[in-house]
Amino acid sequence: MFHILNVDDLATDFLLDLWNLALVNKGKRNSKLKNKIITNLFYEPSTRTSSSFFSAMNLSGGSVIPINNVQFSSVSKGESLQDTILTMSAMTDAIVLRHHEEGSALKASEVSEVPIINGGDGKGEHPTQTILDGFTIFNSFSESMSNLRITLVGDLKNGRTVKGLVKLLSRFNNNHFNFVSPEHLKFSDKLPNSSYETSDINSVIKETDVLYVTRVQKERGSVYNYELKEEQLLSLPRKSIVMHPFPRTTEIPNSFDSDSRAKYFDQIKYGVWCRQILLEKVLLT
Amino acid sequence: MFHILNVDDLATDFLLDLWNLALVNKGKRNSKLKNKIITNLFYEPSTRTSSSFFSAMNLSGGSVIPINNVQFSSVSKGESLQDTILTMSAMTDAIVLRHHEEGSALKASEVSEVPIINGGDGKGEHPTQTILDGFTIFNSFSESMSNLRITLVGDLKNGRTVKGLVKLLSRFNNNHFNFVSPEHLKFSDKLPNSSYETSDINSVIKETDVLYVTRVQKERGSVYNYELKEEQLLSLPRKSIVMHPFPRTTEIPNSFDSDSRAKYFDQIKYGVWCRQILLEKVLLT
Amino acid sequence: MFHILNVDDLATDFLLDLWNLALVNKGKRNSKLKNKIITNLFYEPSTRTSSSFFSAMNLSGGSVIPINNVQFSSVSKGESLQDTILTMSAMTDAIVLRHHEEGSALKASEVSEVPIINGGDGKGEHPTQTILDGFTIFNSFSESMSNLRITLVGDLKNGRTVKGLVKLLSRFNNNHFNFVSPEHLKFSDKLPNSSYETSDINSVIKETDVLYVTRVQKERGSVYNYELKEEQLLSLPRKSIVMHPFPRTTEIPNSFDSDSRAKYFDQIKYGVWCRQILLEKVLLT
Repeated sequence: MFHILNVDDLATDFLLDLWNLALVNKGKRNSKLKNKIITNLFYEPSTRTSSSFFSAMNLSGGSVIPINNVQFSSVSKGESLQDTILTMSAMTDAIVLRHHEEGSALKASEVSEVPIINGGDGKGEHPTQTILDGFTIFNSFSESMSNLRITLVGDLKNGRTVKGLVKLLSRFNNNHFNFVSPEHLKFSDKLPNSSYETSDINSVIKETDVLYVTRVQKERGSVYNYELKEEQLLSLPRKSIVMHPFPRTTEIPNSFDSDSRAKYFDQIKYGVWCRQILLEKVLLT
Repeated sequence: MFHILNVDDLATDFLLDLWNLALVNKGKRNSKLKNKIITNLFYEPSTRTSSSFFSAMNLSGGSVIPINNVQFSSVSKGESLQDTILTMSAMTDAIVLRHHEEGSALKASEVSEVPIINGGDGKGEHPTQTILDGFTIFNSFSESMSNLRITLVGDLKNGRTVKGLVKLLSRFNNNHFNFVSPEHLKFSDKLPNSSYETSDINSVIKETDVLYVTRVQKERGSVYNYELKEEQLLSLPRKSIVMHPFPRTTEIPNSFDSDSRAKYFDQIKYGVWCRQILLEKVLLT
Repeated sequence: MFHILNVDDLATDFLLDLWNLALVNKGKRNSKLKNKIITNLFYEPSTRTSSSFFSAMNLSGGSVIPINNVQFSSVSKGESLQDTILTMSAMTDAIVLRHHEEGSALKASEVSEVPIINGGDGKGEHPTQTILDGFTIFNSFSESMSNLRITLVGDLKNGRTVKGLVKLLSRFNNNHFNFVSPEHLKFSDKLPNSSYETSDINSVIKETDVLYVTRVQKERGSVYNYELKEEQLLSLPRKSIVMHPFPRTTEIPNSFDSDSRAKYFDQIKYGVWCRQILLEKVLLT
């Protein structure tokens, strides 16, 4: 039994194997998990993530107990996270946990009798987002993750998806990172070797392979928003890609959606593909 | 790929075929949709409609991602309807959309990559309710939709089910409509050719084949209620039927429920039968 | 067709048969209910109970329409419980009803066209909890339910699980009951023949086979809590068992969880096993 708690725990070989399987399978249906049931235990709402796991589980024939808005449920009777985890692990085969507190997935894994998949723990990690982000790059650049110029823009201080992606891409050779944000939302983790920090997107956009745009995290306390203009996006190299973990507000104009460089809706589809393979790995090991 | 957005888009041949299939199948189980998954995307609560689609999908072996109370979900992070639709259409095979704004289903269909089924859009339409209402009449009058005297009573101004049913029955020959409401809740669409407006139910109830009672739409701003007495209902012709789109408050007394003319619980069952066939048509075309 | 409304309706032979089947089957998967769909109709939240039925139904291949927080649904449009029951019984094969009002399950059964399973009705009953509590004892004491010293502790006035368990165990020979509570939370039903009331747990804990600890029912108006110390629990006889219907707050320290006498997480697993057999009995009869 193993848990999916953070990016550092995911071995590169494991990820490459997962991505290769996802690329071959492309979300095709099977019945490998027809005897399995998982719990979507969501302490804060995340339609996208919970639906993605639901759909992924379904593709392999498995079932999901959807528990959304746990704040309205038994927890209101004063139950600890540990007891809730032990309860759900007594009746299901794995738990996808979304929680507002950093470290909650780790805490859950310490008591659970079944695998815990971290579906986002506050300002902590969101490893399955990193898996799908990585797959999007893997799939867009001929299954290579090296020699890329990655420009990250927006709220780099609070965005857990940025932290995860930087950790992941730092493992591969010769990647360069541009961190674009205002001073008060600067990337707060250790900078990778080849890094450049700026508040001016125009100074780096033309030298970018992967533009990763993040949302202002209103619910985590930031108030800044970054609106990219269509002209700026059109100045990206032809073979670059534009990613966004979604939801977006006004960071990327809708008019860019039909551009072949826009990969943010592909990311959502890839999320299902990757989570399907991940669930098979977690539940059949 | 086609959407189910409004009654006018539903060809009569399409409906007659759907009803005939529903009548033969009667909600029998099959596995035609065992490889399909849809999203119930409900921006306002409607247990009846969402459960009916859930059950219908299940009868054909398919699955449903239940998203209720979208107001508590990612939308609270400021996502547009279009982005939510594109998101869910990247991971499911069709979307049943319930939304408080008129025109939202059309808006959704303009961006979606998968079929949109309008599950009610504010004061707009609710075409699957019209389909099941039509089937109830079809099934009660020997598969004929003509030569009927239809009496519609209650809030005719705001009730979208009334508008849909009038549109549908106007297509068939020799139907006569009685509109019974107080002045301020009068039917506001174009009156059919053979129409009579009154505020006195007693003047028409004995000359009625289909009595269609609607609920006061408190959540859409009306304050009037129409309470039918059991004596009035008993004065209906023996071969007439009484319909109600539900939920009811006090429009029809419970004591009438066991009368053979009361068809409102049959409507609910027929809703599942019809939606099953509709989903098969939408998802297998 | 039969309903599961209260403990008194459950014949002892029925229960012994159910427990024996659950003990043999141990939650193993089958497809006996693959053509069945039930509704989890929960007017108040209960993640544990609703998830247990969901998982149990799934183990036998069936499906569940999850309706949680009915207060946010059609009922807000003023629908009566009876109409909601008739609605759901027109589209599903059974209804698990959780409701805040005592007597609601009985009321539901009087109109329903499908079996009603009482999933807890206010201060009334929670018969499937009693079934799993009974199974826990049955399984822990060599399939015997007699000659036991049962100590019940906590809020004995409001706790419906205590009332159900006392009713059940009173049917078997030579059981003795210790009721431990402060004066204002004393057991309010008729005391069984061999009973002893006290407010001092220490006076009876060493002469106990089954220690049944309940939670303070804040949401039902009590304000007392009973904290057992680890030393007290360790003074229980070696072959005794400790049960709790959960959720717990501070009644039992986490440090006791790994003790072999602690059966409260087993209860959760057994709940799924028993509900699976119960659903098969209810839906296939």
